[in-house]
Amino acid sequence: MHFADALTQRSQNTAPICVGLDPNLSKLPDGITKDAAGVLSFSKGIIDAVKDIAVCVKPQMAYYEVLGWEGMKVFWESCAYAKEQGLLVIADGKRNDIGSTCDAYADAYLHEHSPIDALTVSPYLGSDGIKPFMERCAKNEKGIFVLVKTSNPSSGELQDLPCGDEVVHEHMAQLVESWATEHLGSASGFSCIGAVVGATYPEELTYLRTLMPHVPILIPGYGAQGGEAEDVRPGFVPNGTGAIVNSSRGIIFASSGNDWQEAASKAAHEMAEVITGLF
Amino acid sequence: MHFADALTQRSQNTAPICVGLDPNLSKLPDGITKDAAGVLSFSKGIIDAVKDIAVCVKPQMAYYEVLGWEGMKVFWESCAYAKEQGLLVIADGKRNDIGSTCDAYADAYLHEHSPIDALTVSPYLGSDGIKPFMERCAKNEKGIFVLVKTSNPSSGELQDLPCGDEVVHEHMAQLVESWATEHLGSASGFSCIGAVVGATYPEELTYLRTLMPHVPILIPGYGAQGGEAEDVRPGFVPNGTGAIVNSSRGIIFASSGNDWQEAASKAAHEMAEVITGLF
Repeated sequence: MHFADALTQRSQNTAPICVGLDPNLSKLPDGITKDAAGVLSFSKGIIDAVKDIAVCVKPQMAYYEVLGWEGMKVFWESCAYAKEQGLLVIADGKRNDIGSTCDAYADAYLHEHSPIDALTVSPYLGSDGIKPFMERCAKNEKGIFVLVKTSNPSSGELQDLPCGDEVVHEHMAQLVESWATEHLGSASGFSCIGAVVGATYPEELTYLRTLMPHVPILIPGYGAQGGEAEDVRPGFVPNGTGAIVNSSRGIIFASSGNDWQEAASKAAHEMAEVITGLF
Repeated sequence: MHFADALTQRSQNTAPICVGLDPNLSKLPDGITKDAAGVLSFSKGIIDAVKDIAVCVKPQMAYYEVLGWEGMKVFWESCAYAKEQGLLVIADGKRNDIGSTCDAYADAYLHEHSPIDALTVSPYLGSDGIKPFMERCAKNEKGIFVLVKTSNPSSGELQDLPCGDEVVHEHMAQLVESWATEHLGSASGFSCIGAVVGATYPEELTYLRTLMPHVPILIPGYGAQGGEAEDVRPGFVPNGTGAIVNSSRGIIFASSGNDWQEAASKAAHEMAEVITGLF
């Protein structure tokens, strides 16, 4: 199934929320070993805790890469496990390169049999750094989320630079929309080419939704980073589709005690209720 | 030793050239198996062939990542081997993230005992995506190269956008220079915070050299991508320091036959002669 159709269908059956797997060793709960085996146990435990309520999980590759190749092994095992449990998987790698190197990244993460459904990508290189990913999206029913306006305090240093009548992130949004319209899902009307727009900039989110009518928006920055429910509402279209809200720390580290799975499940269900309650 | 001092010292003892390790399976020479073991053999073989003439090797992470965790295992083994042979190692990963996730990338690649000396990073996120790397650079004598003006045809879509009296890549260059001046090497006068500027845009390289007087410039795009010796000259300061010119395919795939190591060595020596002949 086309990625945006799968995302939309599952978000209507569950809730349009994504749980970020950020297995920071220093924050793992009591009883989890601080190594690759512990990261795998923790990732699987969170997947089990949220699989009935989340659309997707978003493993943050840095926390796996920091454990070397053993970390990459458990990254792939975690992705495969999430897929087996019926979740969609967004690998948060912010990968970017050009030409045959970009082909290699696209083949690495978005190949036909990959357990990963979508990858985050960084757009500084222009369309040379995006098109190889788009080809795999079209061919293998995968997706990408292109960074447009990120949730962090300094995102404006580059992304808000004024260029003519607009700012850089608006220009980027128009590029993403132009790429997106080539690859629309027949059921959802959305593209497999998505965008990242942070919950911490609700005014920009409102405007960017209008600039990118065919683009599914992945919204980080909810919860621990300060974004609230009203802040994410403008990322959705009126029927409650078109966006996925991510929370990481607020769910996965809801408790550092032995009840971490129950606490994560409870936090995810509470978030789902808040977000679905917007519509 | 401070990264820029090490880079400058070694470039004066050899030649200011970097050999890109892009072990694209489809291009590996005859007799090399098309798997992770083959990629390790090939990487080591190229390292042996160029270790007496290059300043550094630049393993392109995508070609290792595409082989899954086995690929990451040989990536780390290749980096360690290059380090043992006396080469500096620039991991070309174009990593980027914010906050504690950026800390994880920085710890992954630039930790105290890492065989990697420097990492390429993408700047779309602003200084939140750079400062965690800078902290490790200062603490662990490592370096980064920030994408400023890349060598690919579409780099201008974002990087050349006019903003006020300048364009995006000029603004980015000024940011990089402002970060760089905090971390200068006492011997070379250059910073451990470097920039990537493509050989395919010599006019921009000329101007960017003046905008970033303390920034070592990694210049890709020489050779197979079309950049020539005269194009890279403006990246250097008059005494021939301040830049490193990278070639990948032109060296590592100089022959697809059994003489691939000799051919790579010959191509690297020829390139070194051309580049050192500029000064």
